[in-house]
Amino acid sequence: MTIKYENVFINEVSTITGPYEKKGPLGSLFDKSYDDFYFNQKNWEEAEIYLLEESVRNLIKKISKKNEDINLFISGDLLNQTISSNYVASKINIPFLGIYNACATSVEGLIIGSNMIEGKQINNCICSVSSHNNSAEKQFRYPVEYGGPKPKTTTFTVTGAACAFLSNEKSIIKVESSTIGTVKDMGLDNVYQMGAAMTPSCADTIYRHLKETNREINYYDMIYSGDLGLYGKKILKEYMMEEYNIDLINYDDTATIIYDLNKQPVYSGGSGPACLPLVAYSYILGKMKRKELKKVLLVATGALMSPTAINEKMTIPSIAHAISLEVVE
Amino acid sequence: MTIKYENVFINEVSTITGPYEKKGPLGSLFDKSYDDFYFNQKNWEEAEIYLLEESVRNLIKKISKKNEDINLFISGDLLNQTISSNYVASKINIPFLGIYNACATSVEGLIIGSNMIEGKQINNCICSVSSHNNSAEKQFRYPVEYGGPKPKTTTFTVTGAACAFLSNEKSIIKVESSTIGTVKDMGLDNVYQMGAAMTPSCADTIYRHLKETNREINYYDMIYSGDLGLYGKKILKEYMMEEYNIDLINYDDTATIIYDLNKQPVYSGGSGPACLPLVAYSYILGKMKRKELKKVLLVATGALMSPTAINEKMTIPSIAHAISLEVVE
Repeated sequence: MTIKYENVFINEVSTITGPYEKKGPLGSLFDKSYDDFYFNQKNWEEAEIYLLEESVRNLIKKISKKNEDINLFISGDLLNQTISSNYVASKINIPFLGIYNACATSVEGLIIGSNMIEGKQINNCICSVSSHNNSAEKQFRYPVEYGGPKPKTTTFTVTGAACAFLSNEKSIIKVESSTIGTVKDMGLDNVYQMGAAMTPSCADTIYRHLKETNREINYYDMIYSGDLGLYGKKILKEYMMEEYNIDLINYDDTATIIYDLNKQPVYSGGSGPACLPLVAYSYILGKMKRKELKKVLLVATGALMSPTAINEKMTIPSIAHAISLEVVE
Repeated sequence: MTIKYENVFINEVSTITGPYEKKGPLGSLFDKSYDDFYFNQKNWEEAEIYLLEESVRNLIKKISKKNEDINLFISGDLLNQTISSNYVASKINIPFLGIYNACATSVEGLIIGSNMIEGKQINNCICSVSSHNNSAEKQFRYPVEYGGPKPKTTTFTVTGAACAFLSNEKSIIKVESSTIGTVKDMGLDNVYQMGAAMTPSCADTIYRHLKETNREINYYDMIYSGDLGLYGKKILKEYMMEEYNIDLINYDDTATIIYDLNKQPVYSGGSGPACLPLVAYSYILGKMKRKELKKVLLVATGALMSPTAINEKMTIPSIAHAISLEVVE
């Protein structure tokens, strides 16, 4: 389902990361990065909460607003019960909507916020997400301290928190339209190759977005998926051609942009809710502000399983939400 | 933050429950109830997914619509990664937004859906939640098979799934306004007395709703909180008087309505995302349709902690979202 917007803009963003992202090719573009994974906290969960809180406070500082002038805080993350978002919400006294669509949560939040701004129900909102490699590995696979080997199709959960301030005040970056994804499940169950599991939902959302907006693929200067990874993005290109006869030109996957896959030990690239927005709010918005890109479609992809469900032999459902950003004069 | 609506209505609802709810005072009001907790499934998680899917399909049948005529599916539940909602979404091919605000998720969904209908971004949507006593106990405390004793302030997670079909087509039940909650954390950490932990956010939301709508408490025929329980609702009444000098007349808590607390072994009452909407969509809407109640405020309360956070000595943040329903001619 595609929704058009006339009055929604990204006014400001905030990006804070861990050490792997700092050492990656976009390291110098983030607002702040840390050299270790603890951020002076006692455990991985508190480290992730700290990261998200700092990113939100950094954003609020950048926009020079008081908390009471911010209408809404929309946030989600990978931790069970989305506790990173909950504990940060408990510290900022801004009305809160908690959301979860795994690694598609970032764009889900932008969509909910954009809808409310366009509908004149709010003037502005903060949309944020976080992920932390060590808290995610502990929760979804095994604690990193075990040092277990992994296949090369695995993705590496990004450590970082990314926030955007959306409002009805005009800026150079307009939120032009969005497409809410439907959930697809092709019966795959390999959590070390989630790129493959997420391909059908990603392809479906891109296809529906183009169809519902009556656009050709070359309408966009670039289309970015979230965290399909090195192998997943190849599968997506083949799948788009086979299923929809669409040649996915001008396309890349943020999982393969945030790290140097030749030098860093990150398997097939980044993942986690923070992967796409960290790249979008630094590298991609940078290109848009320099007018190197004017029309961009961000397609955040999410694998919607749980470790319990995988242990119970269930498959991996997936979703993808898309948002179209345009440079306006 | 309070939002008013002119064009949002509850057209239809669906309620399916487990055995304890069937034996409770509202048992005859639910669409369907089961005598055991498994619903012919292999484990508690699949049982909850089954329950939610049956409730959604029951709703779709009642409204006589095809899935492609339903614009959006908004759903959340208590399971890690909200898998009940995800797996049901994977079977119905309707655009999906996954949400999580613990036991406040039901009203959170109604608010997001109402916003989009009022903003003319969608014509209709399904808002659903589920919870299952045995899957929740396994995940949040101990498997029920252990038979551990509990203090009397504990609440008993409701087994059931509740769905509403919202649309811009007029019906007798209008969604009149909503108030999005802010997260409060008073430093409490007793998961066997979550009613106390949720009191400040519940009180704050009721207070802000009345203030922002410029209404007195007696504007409403009844105000219902979600799952404070027998002790929590007493604390709320005292707290409202002390903090805001508001005498909470015409008030009850759905946790104490869904079960017979004198006869059923449910401690201080029901809880879980399904508690409030199961009572609302059967007992409360019934009273509204008979015009015994014309103006009702539903305040769903959510405890936003996780077992991991509690083990790490963190406290219990909480939230409450409110929605105002009115009978229209």
